[in-house]
Amino acid sequence: MPSADTPSAIDCDALVIGAGPVGLFQVFQLGLQGVHAEVVDALPVPGGQCIELYADKPIYDIPAVQVCTGRELVERLLRQIAPFAPRFHLGQEVSALAPRDDGRFDLRTSAGQAFIARSVFIAGGVGAFQPRQLKVDGIERHVGRQVFYRLPAPALLAGRQVLVVGGEDAAVDAVLQLADASDEPGSTARPARITLLHRRATLTAEAGALARLQAHVASGLVHFEVGQILGLAQSDGEPPLLTAVQVIGDDDHQRHLATDLIVACLGVSPKLGPIATWGLALERRQLVVDAAHFETSTPGIFAVGDVVTYPGKKKLILCGFHEATLAAFAAAARLRPDQPVLLQYTTTSPRLHQLLGVATPAKA
Amino acid sequence: MPSADTPSAIDCDALVIGAGPVGLFQVFQLGLQGVHAEVVDALPVPGGQCIELYADKPIYDIPAVQVCTGRELVERLLRQIAPFAPRFHLGQEVSALAPRDDGRFDLRTSAGQAFIARSVFIAGGVGAFQPRQLKVDGIERHVGRQVFYRLPAPALLAGRQVLVVGGEDAAVDAVLQLADASDEPGSTARPARITLLHRRATLTAEAGALARLQAHVASGLVHFEVGQILGLAQSDGEPPLLTAVQVIGDDDHQRHLATDLIVACLGVSPKLGPIATWGLALERRQLVVDAAHFETSTPGIFAVGDVVTYPGKKKLILCGFHEATLAAFAAAARLRPDQPVLLQYTTTSPRLHQLLGVATPAKA
Repeated sequence: MPSADTPSAIDCDALVIGAGPVGLFQVFQLGLQGVHAEVVDALPVPGGQCIELYADKPIYDIPAVQVCTGRELVERLLRQIAPFAPRFHLGQEVSALAPRDDGRFDLRTSAGQAFIARSVFIAGGVGAFQPRQLKVDGIERHVGRQVFYRLPAPALLAGRQVLVVGGEDAAVDAVLQLADASDEPGSTARPARITLLHRRATLTAEAGALARLQAHVASGLVHFEVGQILGLAQSDGEPPLLTAVQVIGDDDHQRHLATDLIVACLGVSPKLGPIATWGLALERRQLVVDAAHFETSTPGIFAVGDVVTYPGKKKLILCGFHEATLAAFAAAARLRPDQPVLLQYTTTSPRLHQLLGVATPAKA
Repeated sequence: MPSADTPSAIDCDALVIGAGPVGLFQVFQLGLQGVHAEVVDALPVPGGQCIELYADKPIYDIPAVQVCTGRELVERLLRQIAPFAPRFHLGQEVSALAPRDDGRFDLRTSAGQAFIARSVFIAGGVGAFQPRQLKVDGIERHVGRQVFYRLPAPALLAGRQVLVVGGEDAAVDAVLQLADASDEPGSTARPARITLLHRRATLTAEAGALARLQAHVASGLVHFEVGQILGLAQSDGEPPLLTAVQVIGDDDHQRHLATDLIVACLGVSPKLGPIATWGLALERRQLVVDAAHFETSTPGIFAVGDVVTYPGKKKLILCGFHEATLAAFAAAARLRPDQPVLLQYTTTSPRLHQLLGVATPAKA
């Protein structure tokens, strides 16, 4: 790992790894302590499991919120933390973390962003969400050139025979985006052919999206195939060029689909990933923390939410909120060892009102 | 203490002491465990500190609730726990608690209600809110006959010279209630005279209430006096009869106010009270609990919220929510030792949906 001490490294008091609900509330509690946070998440948007796994499903056990969807919970938390203006670094994982001699930490993301952080908060949930991989022999060598796990830049799509693989919202949405781009007058991103391949005839997606897809299939703009990829056909060059996929259908009939570009939208699955390699004490792949400070075995590195274990731990969002709160108190004591960390109330503290950007009510 | 094993004793799985926000959320978490709760509180309404100390003041640190008043927080929690239909026993304190030989607990309130509870949850906050006492020599002997800490039954007020003491909402509201009762045609509760006594000329209450008071003072229905009670004038009988109070004004001028009945509305102050006498381990007047189960030194008696101490404890409502959650899991394990206590999610569990009275969404 190159030294993080380069001009581009971001020097910060707190780096929060994970922008799920607990990571977001960590930002809030750090904000109340006067500590600004940088936030890194593997997903392209904040929300973690709430967005990825149950965006539109109801949650009933957030205290004082009778019911909200995962998406609504994230929207509420984003509004709540807005006064603290966290900086988000999305679509990238923290791939490396190493302690420095000065007590701070060097961190680097998969996108090459470096940080020097005085404290680190791992709100990693069940791990970084990674696209589920297409399992076909020899596919790895094409990833990033002819195989993608999300829609590549439009320029790469123009004139290509594009095969979207998957049967849920993400796959349907990708096909609709391709079709919409093709439909635009004078579009330069028009693929030569758009095919959706799913192993079953049934797609699972939002009704409106399915209706639009149906219309595109009826008009011949989109082709829908039922089947699974058995193998790749490729040219002999170096690197080899992907030219087609061999598909086996429901009826065991095999066929070739001429293909220049595969976009696999098979959902995501969480991976604990690099976190397991940072030398922090683990127990059954959970980070071991103490229930008073939520600090890991490395002082200055805190951990909260589903990624941690301690006696009595329950993987509930509301427990993560508590954990993030105590972690913020402990971190504030570490960051400002010369100042007592006072418990102040948002109802009455002029200092907290100032941080929150709200008026302190006048005494009646 | 008489045996609680009388016909009127309520036999229950869980008794929650304290109807503040944490006590209310305790009911919710017990409900998710399938455990019904009885709730006792010293105040006449649920809400605890949220209602008594900051009903109309903003709270900013409830996760996912950008801002709400104390009253709104309580209303939200009451809606959330409604599916579990807790039974409230308000305006009474748990005055006695004793373990039974069968592992359950005998409890009795100041109103004489007895309980036999299999588990107890002390969500006692800063203690039971008690009316602040009027500090005047010899006043104790009149309490309940001529001195009250809230408005007595209308029959007691008829034809009396009533002195309301205090300068905030409760005192003003009491005077307005007396005035309204006097104004009703054919009222039998009309006092002979209504006087409000406050040590300063400035009253602190809601603007509308102050305006109505002003009108009653202008019409001569209510008299307003500035001063403090120095002593009581009373007859020689046994018990003696209170006849007047001696008052000293701002101007050091002393005077007598003929008085049959005093209603002191001086606010409330919390008292840990009987809880301290139940043999539970205390540390600086906080109940000692473990941070995994939130159980006190007596198995089966749990404690949560501001009344507890453990390493790292912060007196924040959101921490109490977490504590109540882990206490409910621990209690469920104790109440149903033969069944594993599973962590289920309100988003996905048909069992929790049934308990909450909501429909389980069909799979798409």
